[in-house]
Amino acid sequence: MAGIDEIHAQAVRWIKEAGQRITQSFETILDIETKSSMNDLVTNMDKDVEHFFIERIAERFPDHIVLGEEGAGHDLEELKGVVWIIDPIDGTMNFVHQQRNFAISIGIVENGVGKIGLIYDVVHDELYHCIRGEGAFQNEKRIEPMKEAKLEESIVGLNAIWLTENKKIDKDVTAQLVREVRGTRSYGSAALELIYVATGRLNAYISMRLAPWDFAGGTIIIEELGGKVTDLKGNPIHYLKKSSLIATSPKLHEAIMERYLS
Amino acid sequence: MAGIDEIHAQAVRWIKEAGQRITQSFETILDIETKSSMNDLVTNMDKDVEHFFIERIAERFPDHIVLGEEGAGHDLEELKGVVWIIDPIDGTMNFVHQQRNFAISIGIVENGVGKIGLIYDVVHDELYHCIRGEGAFQNEKRIEPMKEAKLEESIVGLNAIWLTENKKIDKDVTAQLVREVRGTRSYGSAALELIYVATGRLNAYISMRLAPWDFAGGTIIIEELGGKVTDLKGNPIHYLKKSSLIATSPKLHEAIMERYLS
Repeated sequence: MAGIDEIHAQAVRWIKEAGQRITQSFETILDIETKSSMNDLVTNMDKDVEHFFIERIAERFPDHIVLGEEGAGHDLEELKGVVWIIDPIDGTMNFVHQQRNFAISIGIVENGVGKIGLIYDVVHDELYHCIRGEGAFQNEKRIEPMKEAKLEESIVGLNAIWLTENKKIDKDVTAQLVREVRGTRSYGSAALELIYVATGRLNAYISMRLAPWDFAGGTIIIEELGGKVTDLKGNPIHYLKKSSLIATSPKLHEAIMERYLS
Repeated sequence: MAGIDEIHAQAVRWIKEAGQRITQSFETILDIETKSSMNDLVTNMDKDVEHFFIERIAERFPDHIVLGEEGAGHDLEELKGVVWIIDPIDGTMNFVHQQRNFAISIGIVENGVGKIGLIYDVVHDELYHCIRGEGAFQNEKRIEPMKEAKLEESIVGLNAIWLTENKKIDKDVTAQLVREVRGTRSYGSAALELIYVATGRLNAYISMRLAPWDFAGGTIIIEELGGKVTDLKGNPIHYLKKSSLIATSPKLHEAIMERYLS
């Protein structure tokens, strides 16, 4: 593996450059009138940003593998070597409707172990990033280790859809949780909600259905800050598999698991 | 009544000044360790900003009345004359936990009719404002009139708490709505969610329980852009009464009312 510092430095450079491409697309978006062209543009933008990463990674780190939401990367059955897990635009619907509340998410995994995490909140020019074991940062500022919160004082990221009839979880259980915490929020971007957990803006984030590109970057950063990320059965998440997910501080994780999920 | 342009100009000046006070408090917040001191600070900040407005309004427009969340203003039984309806920090919990996703909200009402609306997203330095009949603006840029969206393509602001057992609405009805729209969001600030509706970032916002200071500014701006704001029975909202609320474009309003609320 190329030096981890070198990979991190390149990833930081590229994610910022990708952010610029996205920002520049806003002017075009604002010119577009019809919904169908809007959808085309977004699809194009997602693909464009993914290709941007694939090309640069192939040139600079030819032995690295890319797993991306748009599927232009590799087909993977196992996590051997260095794998970049990329969501070019996490929160696509927000990107279309709001031109805010979306992020670029990258997790870099070596032989199945998360090594580098990056989430770029493009609109705020806030880059959250870490190298495993070296602390996590918001731009150049070190992020404090995660703090515990009591269940009843917690703000939890959770979409209302999980309080409707669904195959993943008993809606009465999620309803009970919603009543017992201080409040819930839903921002429509897993990457942003995970970074909100990492920085204490949310105390926990729960989703029943995420893909590796949704959670890879955020998980690596949260773990670096002492947080815990598992599926809703308490099993470790896998960077190749779709999964339910709970991301929070260790004691709150235990409390939520015991009270609602066991 | 003093000239409406003059009142608007003063309100713009004061809301920006109040925003600066809040921004300056962030450094103090970041120094505070214990939760209890944090709560004190927030209460103080809310009160401080409300007093700031009360003092300036009393000096400059002595015949105007102030109705504020912190209750330091007037006790009102009817809406005679010019009333400033103020939420100094809408989204207090976000202010504490996130130092983002909150806003200052002001609605200025004359004899019960909304005349001036202002919502200031302090962190983004985005001031949304209007004088009735003269169009609404984001900073200096005119906001386009609201567009319609189909129910199944709508993004709706709605907190998950309204899908749990409550006295205001049948939770099965809200669950059905959540399943049938494209997606829901919850940002934890009514003022921001209303301005998201005004600017097309959300297609609708629904809440079962709001106070006048939560919705006055946003309602005036949304109505200026051709949107419709009523309680969940379809009645006009009243600027002195707590109320349920649905804010959206007229046709989507009709569709939601017919399908879920009649």
